[in-house]
Amino acid sequence: MKAKGTRFERELLRMLWDAGFAAIRVPASGAMSYPSPDIIAGNGRRYLAIEVKMRSSLPLYISKEEVDDLRRFSKIFGAEPILAVKIAKIGWKFLSIEVLKETRTGYKVDEEVFHSGLEFDELLGRYRQCRLR
Amino acid sequence: MKAKGTRFERELLRMLWDAGFAAIRVPASGAMSYPSPDIIAGNGRRYLAIEVKMRSSLPLYISKEEVDDLRRFSKIFGAEPILAVKIAKIGWKFLSIEVLKETRTGYKVDEEVFHSGLEFDELLGRYRQCRLR
Repeated sequence: MKAKGTRFERELLRMLWDAGFAAIRVPASGAMSYPSPDIIAGNGRRYLAIEVKMRSSLPLYISKEEVDDLRRFSKIFGAEPILAVKIAKIGWKFLSIEVLKETRTGYKVDEEVFHSGLEFDELLGRYRQCRLR
Repeated sequence: MKAKGTRFERELLRMLWDAGFAAIRVPASGAMSYPSPDIIAGNGRRYLAIEVKMRSSLPLYISKEEVDDLRRFSKIFGAEPILAVKIAKIGWKFLSIEVLKETRTGYKVDEEVFHSGLEFDELLGRYRQCRLR
């Protein structure tokens, strides 16, 4: 399971470098209890803190703690918190944590939330558009 | 050797979190050939890419490749490249890669360079001062 996650994190890492970002994978923090995302990327203008999830199908459930950690890390670091979801045979979508649906114990990504997500190019383009205003 | 490096990286990580930065350790990149520093830190205003070195004594030699990688990563990511050097029983100094002395195969930190480095508080304070101009 962890190895699989790693493979998709590497795929996303490559996409980010190809798109002009410097990006690194963050290891599980081990003994240290600080929050951290799976990937951090920057291009001198934008900084992204990315939690990566891969599933064979939806819905995808995420604990409240994981989302809170991503939000907290991003706020201190100065990065946009992004949830990157890859569904097997469908592909990547990039979600703001604001669009996640709350459950009793955390959050979920269902079909509706997933399809409201951005494609990789849109993730990069949307903010570029914002910058030009 | 790697374990020792890790211990000092963790010490620096803690110093950064205590100073209001979100900071993460970057694992050795393994199969992927992208450049990466040992630590990345950000506080919403400043972003630091830090290469960490611990030695029992000076001089400290660093390969040209390592310094070039730090410079390249920092430039793409949008971070200040910093060399953090800890000498046993003396402590930490934080160096700009511009002050390193060139050797035939890379760079070195001798007594003169080490003592021209900044203390941790100065590292944070100096740039704060710059921002107020």
